[in-house]
Amino acid sequence: MTAQKAVQIFENDMVVGSSGFTKAGDSKVVLEALAERAKNENLKITLMTGASLGHDTDGKLAEAGALKKRMPFQVDKVLRSKINSGEVLFIDQHLSESAELLHNKNLPPVDIAVIEVAFIDRDGSLVPTTSVGNSATFAELAEKVIIEINTAIPMDIYGIHDIYKAENYPYRNVIPIVAPWNKIGRKTIAIDPTKIVGIVFTDKQDSPADIAEPDPKTIAIANHILAFFENEVQLGHLTDRLLPIQAGIGKVANAVLTGFKDSNFYDLTMFSEVLQDSTFDLIDSGKLSFASASSITVSAACYDRVFGNLQNYREKIVLRPQNISNTPGLIRRLGIIAINTAIEFDIYGNVNSTHIGGTKIMNGIGGSGDFARNAYLSIFVAQSASKNNTISHVLPMVSHVDHTEHDVDILVTDIGLADLRGLAPRERAQKIIDNCVHPDFREELQSYFDRACERGGHTPHLLEEAFSWHLRLQQTGTMKK
Amino acid sequence: MTAQKAVQIFENDMVVGSSGFTKAGDSKVVLEALAERAKNENLKITLMTGASLGHDTDGKLAEAGALKKRMPFQVDKVLRSKINSGEVLFIDQHLSESAELLHNKNLPPVDIAVIEVAFIDRDGSLVPTTSVGNSATFAELAEKVIIEINTAIPMDIYGIHDIYKAENYPYRNVIPIVAPWNKIGRKTIAIDPTKIVGIVFTDKQDSPADIAEPDPKTIAIANHILAFFENEVQLGHLTDRLLPIQAGIGKVANAVLTGFKDSNFYDLTMFSEVLQDSTFDLIDSGKLSFASASSITVSAACYDRVFGNLQNYREKIVLRPQNISNTPGLIRRLGIIAINTAIEFDIYGNVNSTHIGGTKIMNGIGGSGDFARNAYLSIFVAQSASKNNTISHVLPMVSHVDHTEHDVDILVTDIGLADLRGLAPRERAQKIIDNCVHPDFREELQSYFDRACERGGHTPHLLEEAFSWHLRLQQTGTMKK
Repeated sequence: MTAQKAVQIFENDMVVGSSGFTKAGDSKVVLEALAERAKNENLKITLMTGASLGHDTDGKLAEAGALKKRMPFQVDKVLRSKINSGEVLFIDQHLSESAELLHNKNLPPVDIAVIEVAFIDRDGSLVPTTSVGNSATFAELAEKVIIEINTAIPMDIYGIHDIYKAENYPYRNVIPIVAPWNKIGRKTIAIDPTKIVGIVFTDKQDSPADIAEPDPKTIAIANHILAFFENEVQLGHLTDRLLPIQAGIGKVANAVLTGFKDSNFYDLTMFSEVLQDSTFDLIDSGKLSFASASSITVSAACYDRVFGNLQNYREKIVLRPQNISNTPGLIRRLGIIAINTAIEFDIYGNVNSTHIGGTKIMNGIGGSGDFARNAYLSIFVAQSASKNNTISHVLPMVSHVDHTEHDVDILVTDIGLADLRGLAPRERAQKIIDNCVHPDFREELQSYFDRACERGGHTPHLLEEAFSWHLRLQQTGTMKK
Repeated sequence: MTAQKAVQIFENDMVVGSSGFTKAGDSKVVLEALAERAKNENLKITLMTGASLGHDTDGKLAEAGALKKRMPFQVDKVLRSKINSGEVLFIDQHLSESAELLHNKNLPPVDIAVIEVAFIDRDGSLVPTTSVGNSATFAELAEKVIIEINTAIPMDIYGIHDIYKAENYPYRNVIPIVAPWNKIGRKTIAIDPTKIVGIVFTDKQDSPADIAEPDPKTIAIANHILAFFENEVQLGHLTDRLLPIQAGIGKVANAVLTGFKDSNFYDLTMFSEVLQDSTFDLIDSGKLSFASASSITVSAACYDRVFGNLQNYREKIVLRPQNISNTPGLIRRLGIIAINTAIEFDIYGNVNSTHIGGTKIMNGIGGSGDFARNAYLSIFVAQSASKNNTISHVLPMVSHVDHTEHDVDILVTDIGLADLRGLAPRERAQKIIDNCVHPDFREELQSYFDRACERGGHTPHLLEEAFSWHLRLQQTGTMKK
């Protein structure tokens, strides 16, 4: 049927689950048609996805007033503005947890799922496309399912997915993955065919990833991290194979991975959420042996290289449901090196990944919490300062906490790297001030810390001054005095 | 040898690992003798344990200046004061992680371990006493080991421990526990006998738990939780067996567990850190079928009942290493109902478990993060107000974040229960204000939230006012205007 016909099935106040994770494998036409329909009538849904959607779909839905509630992640500027104005309610969730919460009935049931597939297999099961996300959970739990068959996806994507379903409580078993390359499930998503209420054809590619060229700060951060890894190998803590790497989305992660190309590390693996251009560069260069994730999100330039040559990559990648790719038990079992981006961090190493000025959300916590808490090494990166050095990203106190100091081992800015392992809060503070803060802000941060220490405490702070840098920025447009 | 002789082995700046978890199974004489020795010479150690020690040992060590650094938990008032003054450096750690960090060499190596045992088995391995904690890790990794054989512990404690060792990276396997009663390891702790540099005999019992009689607020909190569970059963979310329960230390946890005695729930299980009086009451009443933890910490009145009748309890309890009892993967696999205590929480459901006024540590995060993050249901409890209602425990913004809103499903005070599942931050705030805050503070908290919403944001706040209640308390002795 047409997307326009398919969206007649939706009703006001329904809960909708959609495929899509980091702009990959999302609904290309049904959600867009839903936005069109919502322009002219009162039709507000709760929308759950894997993670972010491409094609400005979130923006179109938000603009049309079609979203009552949205979870667990988004990156759209229109939607973001409506979340921050209070028009759309957003639940910012650890990406491993959405499927858990649905299975546990800690979230309302899904009325309709929209799932992009490459094709329907001969046994009626679904072959996902460029992401798995929460699609298997939506297919299982939704009352009705609309399928988008995307003919732009090559048929030989069949086999790169590993669909594993955890049992429900109290009969849950072990998830038998002990290495990134283990495949433990089915190639396709089982579905009760009587649930399928519509099949729509599309032929649109995913929105391409925006890959910014690395700038000097990004390169500096990447080099600090690579030098740190080299030193860990020297010390005998790690071999030159390292341990499986998780890298958040963005230019720092890309720069670190790219940096491996010219390094002495080899036989690397990834156990991550998303595979970006740099993953395929590393595979091509022979440095990366295997990469596990929940989606492939690459630039336009990289797209044909990957999807035109899946036979080259088939044995070296796997896409998993996000409640497997991000599950805490596997992250701890495999010993992941996690590299994630902070908006800001404070002198004790608490990290804000999500909020500007403590109130306005940027994207969401995504999988950073799943990985940082359970990683072998939890690394967070940020630029030391931005906007012509008027904003410091190293602060007396973060305005919003996503990751507490317990979950942060290493902090890196363009200025340097602070290895916080085995340090108490006061030691952490001094190392962060010495190694990470931009020189323009160092003296004032040191003064804050010194004066806080005079007042005492395990985690010395001056509560009346803790947010003074944020407030100065609000009032004067700069954090500088 | 004597404890006095044993402590001659210690040298300045050594890293010492000691048995002891929630005051159970701790060193009774060696650490005390170390404190004595440190009174007269410069002898400062880094001390790691399972969790807290009894017999004021931490206080004696701190008083003698014997502690340079302490981790991962403590409850001693003398030590606490020295941590807050900066004299002793403290690392507040998720209790599941200390063993990980040692195995991963993310902490310095252990020079000497002090381990209390009931006896040495015929094969030379160690039979732990009333806790396991990190003893198996210390026994494996320490260069030298001093054994305290505690003859006050009945020999038939043999068999209640389940000692399982996870492999090191990258060869770690699954931990094959799928139910609280699974025993997957050895009964004793293997040790290389050439490491044992001293054996000391003691006959002291553990420090008894202080069990405060439940007060009206505690009872109100417990009743809100029990009513909530009953409703979840009515809704079909849970059976009347519930799911395995974790309960933090303290009177609320005891009151909730005691409340089960007269309830319709049956065949309950626990997967927790510590077994308290109420656990044994529930076993005796036939309501609790099995309890897994890392220690037994009971009152003086309960001690003989438990340790004089171990044959009655042997099949119904198990003590595990804390990197098993608290490991994130098992907590998620088993679907734990976690009940932990907050010092304060804020309108969005962020929880402070550790710090007074944002700076001074109370005890530590303990296992609350291990459980809250990965639980099927994460419940936090606090009294709504204290000190003649001059201090509200529900605040505009917590002064220190241990658990972010992502990890908090249910908040309970004596006033009522806020079920936050499926709610966005603004919805969470209104429900917390409506259900949890003390009436004396409700109007002002509502005003803060309303004015913050006018300014906008996903998580509305007025940064210049966020800590005003804490500051008022600092300045005037009350949070009231």
